[in-house]
Formats: sequence, structure tokens, C-alpha cells
Amino acid sequence: LVESWSFLDTVESNFRPLVVIELGKGTKEETIEWLTKRIVDKKANGGAQLLIKPLVTENGVENIYLVGASHLRLLLGAETVGLVKECNDNSMRTFTYSSRKTFKHFADDNHNFLTMGECQYIIKHELENLRAKNEKMIPGYPQAKLYPGKSIVRRLLTSGILVQIFPLHDREELKKLSHSWYGRVKVGYQPLDDIRCYFGETIALYFGFLEYFTFALIPMAVIGIPYYVFAWEDYDKYVMFATFNLLWSTVILEVWKRICAILTYRWGTLLMKRQFEEPRPGFHGVLGINPVTGREEPVYSSIKRQLRIYLVSLPFVCLCLYFSLYVMMIYFDLEQWALDYHKENESNFSSLMLYVPSIIYAVVIEIMNRIYRYAAEFLTSWENHRLESSYQNHLILKVLVFNFLNCFASLFYIAFVLFDMKLLRQSLATLLITSQILNQFAESLLPYWLQKRYNRRMKKRMCSKKTDMDLSLAEQVNMEKEMGTYLGTFDDYLELFLQFGYVSLFSCVYPLAAVFAVLNNITEIYSDALKMCRVYKRPFAEPTANIGVWQLAFETMSVISVVTNCILIGMSPQVDALFPDSKMDLVLTVAFVEHLLLAIKFIMAFVIPDKPRDIQMKLAKLEFESLEALKQQVRAFQMQL
Amino acid sequence: LVESWSFLDTVESNFRPLVVIELGKGTKEETIEWLTKRIVDKKANGGAQLLIKPLVTENGVENIYLVGASHLRLLLGAETVGLVKECNDNSMRTFTYSSRKTFKHFADDNHNFLTMGECQYIIKHELENLRAKNEKMIPGYPQAKLYPGKSIVRRLLTSGILVQIFPLHDREELKKLSHSWYGRVKVGYQPLDDIRCYFGETIALYFGFLEYFTFALIPMAVIGIPYYVFAWEDYDKYVMFATFNLLWSTVILEVWKRICAILTYRWGTLLMKRQFEEPRPGFHGVLGINPVTGREEPVYSSIKRQLRIYLVSLPFVCLCLYFSLYVMMIYFDLEQWALDYHKENESNFSSLMLYVPSIIYAVVIEIMNRIYRYAAEFLTSWENHRLESSYQNHLILKVLVFNFLNCFASLFYIAFVLFDMKLLRQSLATLLITSQILNQFAESLLPYWLQKRYNRRMKKRMCSKKTDMDLSLAEQVNMEKEMGTYLGTFDDYLELFLQFGYVSLFSCVYPLAAVFAVLNNITEIYSDALKMCRVYKRPFAEPTANIGVWQLAFETMSVISVVTNCILIGMSPQVDALFPDSKMDLVLTVAFVEHLLLAIKFIMAFVIPDKPRDIQMKLAKLEFESLEALKQQVRAFQMQL
Repeated sequence: LVESWSFLDTVESNFRPLVVIELGKGTKEETIEWLTKRIVDKKANGGAQLLIKPLVTENGVENIYLVGASHLRLLLGAETVGLVKECNDNSMRTFTYSSRKTFKHFADDNHNFLTMGECQYIIKHELENLRAKNEKMIPGYPQAKLYPGKSIVRRLLTSGILVQIFPLHDREELKKLSHSWYGRVKVGYQPLDDIRCYFGETIALYFGFLEYFTFALIPMAVIGIPYYVFAWEDYDKYVMFATFNLLWSTVILEVWKRICAILTYRWGTLLMKRQFEEPRPGFHGVLGINPVTGREEPVYSSIKRQLRIYLVSLPFVCLCLYFSLYVMMIYFDLEQWALDYHKENESNFSSLMLYVPSIIYAVVIEIMNRIYRYAAEFLTSWENHRLESSYQNHLILKVLVFNFLNCFASLFYIAFVLFDMKLLRQSLATLLITSQILNQFAESLLPYWLQKRYNRRMKKRMCSKKTDMDLSLAEQVNMEKEMGTYLGTFDDYLELFLQFGYVSLFSCVYPLAAVFAVLNNITEIYSDALKMCRVYKRPFAEPTANIGVWQLAFETMSVISVVTNCILIGMSPQVDALFPDSKMDLVLTVAFVEHLLLAIKFIMAFVIPDKPRDIQMKLAKLEFESLEALKQQVRAFQMQL
Repeated sequence: LVESWSFLDTVESNFRPLVVIELGKGTKEETIEWLTKRIVDKKANGGAQLLIKPLVTENGVENIYLVGASHLRLLLGAETVGLVKECNDNSMRTFTYSSRKTFKHFADDNHNFLTMGECQYIIKHELENLRAKNEKMIPGYPQAKLYPGKSIVRRLLTSGILVQIFPLHDREELKKLSHSWYGRVKVGYQPLDDIRCYFGETIALYFGFLEYFTFALIPMAVIGIPYYVFAWEDYDKYVMFATFNLLWSTVILEVWKRICAILTYRWGTLLMKRQFEEPRPGFHGVLGINPVTGREEPVYSSIKRQLRIYLVSLPFVCLCLYFSLYVMMIYFDLEQWALDYHKENESNFSSLMLYVPSIIYAVVIEIMNRIYRYAAEFLTSWENHRLESSYQNHLILKVLVFNFLNCFASLFYIAFVLFDMKLLRQSLATLLITSQILNQFAESLLPYWLQKRYNRRMKKRMCSKKTDMDLSLAEQVNMEKEMGTYLGTFDDYLELFLQFGYVSLFSCVYPLAAVFAVLNNITEIYSDALKMCRVYKRPFAEPTANIGVWQLAFETMSVISVVTNCILIGMSPQVDALFPDSKMDLVLTVAFVEHLLLAIKFIMAFVIPDKPRDIQMKLAKLEFESLEALKQQVRAFQMQL
């Protein structure tokens, strides 16, 4: 074993490039030397014990380095990051090097035991955990301060010496994946397991959710179609639709938790222990002692952060909300103007004009959402959160509140202030369809065009008929480093969240929304897949066990939709006609039904178990085993005495 | 060390009796011999390695045995059960024998390092985990079947050979505790830490909650008094009171979580790992393989249990609920009759008669609650739940639903069907006060009388002027084994839960309820303390980290109370007068305010952290340390290579 370790450590023929490090132009020799030494150095000396090679191109060395690792190193790294893999007895267990023989498909010469995505994740983890020992600064850059325990790579990134770190695509695998994913027109599930192997759990889970959500919308769409076809206007039918809708939305969100548990159990992330969270790269503060770790690191007073949140961010968000409402009022003026114009000169043109304000407003909403997104990112970053998770939660909260108001305020206004159901239906349709078209353009047509352009440019540059497969490593690296960076699943989930709002909030006045949502999501799957495979750099695989705060966001939306739908139904003339004598009785009945539905919702959420029974059993079995092992240990110790 | 182990193991002078085992009269010699051998036997041979001694009284051996353990054995047991103790650096850590020197107050000759309650818990745990090896039955009792891994003590209990196991009181400690707890009239907190040392965490947490809840009610009581004194009837004042009440009830429930975390952190149970749950003693089924543990044990099909729950228990509960409503209707008939009687012959007697139906109804409610309780226990036991926790949850759910309806249905009927606020106030007061008097009688006067009688009996039996302190061990054991068994905190929490309902559900019509609740709880603390110290056998200490399902029950009650109070306020003539034109506007406003309050409640529950910041930090520190330790291990292994 020890021989094989040193063997793999030195023999270059085994070097498989996994991750690319791009340093800034003109980085000092001394820095490069120090960095490579630290990366290659033995663990015992505080190094990362990885392999590194400069990329040699026709133009010579370009400050681009390829990082790899020996097979043994990767296996030990898999233990460090706590990967969970399948054993020979079909159970999922945390991988340890000493128990490696018990894992499925493990063989000392099987270098595919770890997927490439996992290897790249391990290397990223090891690089990020390469920490300063007693260096006071990065050699050659006195302004880039270091202190014991500071992550070197993060300091290099924040001081701009390191331009980027990204994992390499595997051309062959990618081709296979993209063929089975979107390459052929077929009806069927996405290859989620393959996506997970290539892109990691976070992205696979997004596509899993997108697919699940689309399937879940189909019953709603199917029931919605006859309302359009037969122009049903009976409100008893709408009541039926809305009731079904409400219960259905609860069921699908609960069932998703179960499906998510099944997926992440199979992928091992359900069992993965949470790693201790290090401060996020952008976090800054004066050097102090972290009370939890006892290590020297920047500290930033929590009171200062609270002040920034409550005295700056909160007022800013409120101002933005006010501005959004102001824009909404302008939209209603425009709407009125269009209506007047149509009345004055009735023509085809003027009736088309009726749709113009809504379309303009939809475009303005999209633009405002995108601008606000940047402001929210800036503010949240300025709030200086120590942890990435806390940063994400604050960002998501800010963005969700604004987007919700921005997208739905006008609909609420039309529904509950103007009481104009016809306008509501028209606005809802225009907003939904416009935003879908805009999103499809930004996510599908634009990428497609970018890809075309990029193919053409590449072809020109190569001056040859080489296909992608035949590219040299240097060519591949140079091509990929120019590609855009995928910024995470945030925007994708947000889009689905708003779509869910359009579908469920006012479902009883516009059942056709679900149909549009389904159609949109089918193309969305393809365009997102294309985007992942062709447009962006390969992202690092990130293990995750669930969709996190989005579950809560969707559940909140479904609670709000119970309220809105009950009110809408209560306001309908047909229901009104059922209570000819007393409007009081009507309102009381509606309020009673609403509370009943909410109670049923909460009871359903409580009664439906979050994990299927067999997953529960498997988890219980693992827990039992670990408790038994602990007991054995104690017993062994007692017997010793 | 090894010497000291064998030393303590054999020398009888060190024997301190901790737990009493009472076998049935006429238990066969062979069985006793086998059982004592198993209890004394070395761990390595599958024994419990405890010490056991028959109790010798004047009448000779009476099948009563005293169980103790050597100091070392108890320390090792503390590691097995996963006790968490305070270290020298003030942090809380799981006790392990090898790290014993780092714990506060640890010394090899300090036999008080573990409290007596902890020692007894350890012995109980070890006895319950004494498992059959290859015995097919209990020797001497062929009908008491055993299988490998079956807990011997549980089988002995279910087959009636073992009458009871209970921990011994510590007369001296008990005297000290009862003096500081209820022995003197004083204003101040209860000695929760001492209670915890003596009775364990579950009971201490109940008293902690009772005390906290009483303090939390004081502001409500203080604000409620002027309503009675000045006979305020303005509904704007009632609205103020109700609003304060609603927000207050949310705050106190959230703050309790924090206080609970502080207490259980200090006691170590917050950090204690959950033990693997064995089947409850009453669980039966055909012998099969448990899929989780892989062990042979009785299995019972989950479908059969579901059938029993949904086809028998559920209809039975519904029937009981119907019966309870039927009784309620009889009460209203009675009420009407009393009213008529009062109208016919107006006299002092007849005006007193007005209260009689309410009082009778309150007594009937109490009786029905108690009868139903037995039925619910029988049914839940018959449902044959495998785990004690699942049994408890089903029992609590059954009892809560019935008690809620039984206690509050008449009030709901009066409020929302009869719209009679005067009758509501009167009924609420009668129900609350009667149920408190009944409970106080059953919990305080009855125990007091029992204690008097028992003292007299004891005095007679001893035929001497010996005080409790001078009792011989045999006398103490004989006395304690006759005492009642404390059946857990269920009834105590249930009483508080119903009280919380009386106080919060209709708070805006009867602000004085809080005053009665506070007064009741102050005496409750004393009577419960007396009950624990004097009336019942000492219960085994049970570690717990929170009040469990009761937290959820109280939170649900506070949500329901938002709804009821909003409706009550909406129905008041004063609020009515604010909307002279349109009743619709009134109802809509009330509905809007209610949703707003509910939203505020949920946001508050979400925003207020469940654990105080310093506890969070301490937990994070421990987690960090364990992750670091794991990393160190991996690193050490890597360096070896």
C-alpha cells in the first residue's frame, strides 16, 4: 500500500487533470512557486498532497495550472469529506478507506469508483482547506494578509491573484449525458442519476424538482383545459377546481419531500454529515478569536450587522416595495388610458392596444426584478454575513418578498380592490405568458445563439474540421475558461416559485394557467439542460439533501393561495346568489371553509410522513448499527478491566 | 485500577442499596437463583455485573432484593447510558470513563460524582438491558417464554413474577429537598437543580414549566384585575386585553423553548444522544426478525395496527365525542330549567340554583374525562404499538381531543350559537373554578389526608417514637413498597393545558381567568411537590430534553385562541357600533385582523430563535470539536501511510 501511494504520487503518466486553476497575468514567480509547493506538499507538512501541472500551450505557459490527485489520495479525500456510497449489501454507508473493500464496485484498480464530479468536489474541498501555517502574507503580495488557519485559496481569490478555479468537463461523458438528456426527442424521465454523477446533487435535485413539479401540474392542467374549451363559467365548477387545486398543492409538496428523500438516500447525501461551515470568502472583519473554534479569524460584531440589516437593508427593501407599488399605479393609469382610447376609436388596432399596458408592465416587472436582484446581492454582501448559509437566507428572503409583491401586487389589487374578474384573468394571462416568453428567451434562445456563435468562433480558431472530441487538452481548457459561470440554482427555483404563484394564487379564475406552466416547464427542462451542458463552465458538484428554504417558500405560497382562492370564490356572483338574504352568512361561510381548508392542510402536512417507510427503516437500521458499535466499544473497554 | 474493580466488586461493606426488586410471593427458588446469578454475572458472560442482596427483615426473607453497584461499575454504566456532565472547563461533555479526570468534581474516591438519581437510572437501564442468551423460558416458569435478546426483566414483569422495581428514597436528601422546596413559606424560585438531582429531568422540567407558566400568567392576571374591580365593560379595553393576550401567549411559548434549552443544557440532557428504543413491555406479536436490528423479536403487522386504529379506536373516540356533546345538551336543558325555576319563584335559593347546573356539569366533565382516560389507555394499549413513544403519542392525541371537546364544547356553543356573553362568562367561571377545586382536592387535600393516615399507621406499626430518619433499611423498604406509583407527568401537563385553554380561548370576555389560574398554580406547585416527596414511591429519573408533544399542544391552543378571540371581539356590540352601515365591513375587518394576527404569530415563532445565542455557540463548539476529532483521526491515518 505504502509503495502504491508513493508510486502514484510521482509517476506522471497517471496524471488525470480534474480541476483548472487560472492565476492572474503577471503573477510573481515566487507566489506560484510557494502555491504549488503548498498544494503538492505532504498532509503531514500542512499541504494538500495533490498533483499539479502547468498547462503548456502553443503560446507557452499561461499561468494556467491543472490539478489532479492520485487514486489513493482521492479515496482518502472521500473519507475526509464524508462521502456516502453503496455497500455490497445494498445499504448506504459513509466511506472510509479502511472499510473500502465492503463497498460496491470497489477495486483497487477501479478508478471509476468515485465519479469525476466527486473527485472534483474532493479536490475543491482539499484546496479550500489548504490553510496558512505561519505565513503573515502571500509571498510577493504584502497587502494580501494571512493568519494561521486562513484558507489560502480564498485569500488568493479575494485579492485577485487567483482568477478562477473550475472543474474540467469530460467531453465524452458530457456527450453521452447530453444525448440521453435532451439530445433526442423522447417522452420519459430525465437521467437524474447520470446528471447527479456529472453535475452533483444540487443541480440534479433541481432538475428532479422541475420534472416532478411538471408532472404534478399535469392533473391540474388536464382539469383546466375543459374550462377553456367549453368556456365553463359556472362557479360551482370553479369551486371544485379550486378545492382540488388547494388539496393537490398540499399533497404534491408533501410527496416531494418523500421523493426527495428517496433520491438523496440513493445518492448518499441524505446520510452525509453536515460539515462545519467556514466563513464565506467575502466575510471580513478585524482579527479576533472565534469563540466556537478558538481559532484566530476575522470577527464582525453581530450588533453592527443587525444595525445594517434593520437600519439600511430593511428601509431599502421597503422603499423598493413602495416603488414597485408606485409603478403598479402607473400601470393602472396606462390601462385606463388604453381603455379610453379603445372606447374612443374602436378598431382592431385599439383592441390590440388593450394588451399593450399589461405587456409593458410585465417587461418592466422582469427588469425591476433583475435590477433589484443586484441591489439585494450588494446589500446582503455588505451586511457581511459570516456564513454562506446565512448570506443565502437573507438574500433569498429579500428577493422573495420583493418578487412576490412585484409580480402579484397588481393581481391582488385587481382582484380585491377593483373586483374586476375579467381584467384579473386578462392580466394574469398576459403576465404569465410574457414572463415565460422573456424567461425562455433569456434562458433558451440566448444560450442557443451564444452556443452557435461560440461554435463558429471555435471552428474559425481551430482552422480545422476537428470535432469537440478531438480537441487537445490545452484547447479544451482555453475554451472552457472563457465560458460563463453558472451561479447556482437560485434563479431557476425563483422562476418556478413565481410560476407556482401564478398557477395557484388565482387558480379559480384562470384554470388555464396550469396548462401554460406545464408547456413552459417542458421547454424549460430542455433549455436548462442545454444551458448546463453547453453554455456554462462545469460547476463543482455540491452535495445537498433537500431543496432547503424553497420547500418553505412553496409551502407558504400554498397557504396564501388557500386564502386568495377562498376570497375569490366568495366574491363570485354564483356563490353570492346562494345567500340571497344575508351577505353576512356568505362571508361567515367563506371564512369557515377557509379555516377548515387551512386546518386540513396542516393536518395533512403533519400526517403524511416526510420520508417513505422503507427509507425510515434504512435510516433506523444505520442509527441502530452506530449505537451498537458504540456499545461494543464500551463493552470491549469494560471487558478489558 | 483492576484491583480496585475486583475490590469494590466483592467487599460488601461498600454496598449501598439503590433499587428494590420485589418478586411475587412463592417465586420458585430456581428462578431466584438464576435471576441473581444473571444480575451478578460479569458483563463478558452477558450479566449485568451489579450487586444484589436479599432484604432480611424480622419476618425473614420476603422475596425483596436490594440492588446496588460498585462505584466503578456505575461510572462505566454512566458511559453506556451516555450521561452528559460538566467538565473542568465548564463545558458539558458526554462522560467517558477514560476521560473521567477532566470532569468537574470527579475524584476516584468521590462517590457523589453521580447523583443517586443517576445511579438508579443506570441500574434500571442495566437491568432492563439484561437479555436472554439461549434460555427458551424463565427457569421454573415454562409459560414465560424467552428468546435470544429478550429483556429478562420485562418478561418477568409481564408474566407477574416480578411485582415491581423501584428506586429507594434517600431520607436525608429528601428531607433537605422538601424543606427547600415547600417546607417553608417563601417567595422565590423552586430549587429546580436539586429537584432534578433527586427526581430526574422529566419531573424537574415539569416543575420548571409549571413555575414558568405561573410567572408568565402574572402579567395577564395583573392586567385582568382592574376589569373586575372597576367592572370595565368597554370593548375597546377588551380588545386591548385580547390583543395583548394573543401576542403574549405566543411570546411565552417561544421563550419557554429558550428557557427549556438553558435548563436542559445545564442538566446535560440537551446533548444526550437518543438511545435506540426497544419495544415497550406490553408489546406482543409472533416471533419474527426485526428488519432494523436483525434480531429475533415479536413483530406485529403495521396494517393490523392501522386497522385497529381506524376501524375501532377512531369510531370509539367519535362515539365518545358524540356522547360528550349529548351530555352538553342535557346541561343546557338543565340550565334552561334552572332559569325557568328562578323566574317562577325568585328567591336567594333560586338564584343559587342558577349555578347548580354549571357545577354539576363541571363535575360530570371531570368524571367523564377520568373514565375516558382509562378507555383511551386500554384502547391504545390494545392497538399494540411497538414503541413507548408511539404509544404515548396516540394516547395523548386521543385524550387531548376528547378533553378539549368535553371541556370547551359548551363554551363554544354558548359563545357562537347562543351568542350569550353573560352566560359564557358565568359558565367559564364556574367550569374553571370547579375543575380547579376538584383537582386541588384530588391532588392536594387527598394526598395530605393520605399522608396523615400513613404517618399514623406507620407510628402505630413502629410502636416507637422513631422519626423517619431513624428507620431501619428494612422498615424503609417495607414502607416505600406500599406507596403509590407516580404514573408520569401526563395528567399534570393535561391540567395545565386545559387551564391554558380556559385562560386564553375566551380571554376577552373573562380576564379574571388568569388570576384564578395564577392562584391555582401557586397551590399546585406546593401540592405537586408534596405529592412527589411524600405520597408516591420515588420514580426513576428519566432524562429528557424538552416537554415534547405538549409544546405543540400549547401552540395549537394558542392558534385556536386567536380565532376565538377575534370572533368574540367582532361579535361585541361596541365593535358592532363602529360599523353602523355595513355588517360586511365588520366581518371583513375581523377576518383581516385575524389573518394578520396569525401571520404575526407565525413570523414571531419563526424569528425568535429556539435556543439562546450562548447555548447555540456552546452547541456549535461541541459540534466543531467532534468534527475536528474525526478529521484528526483521518489525518493520523493518512500520515501513517
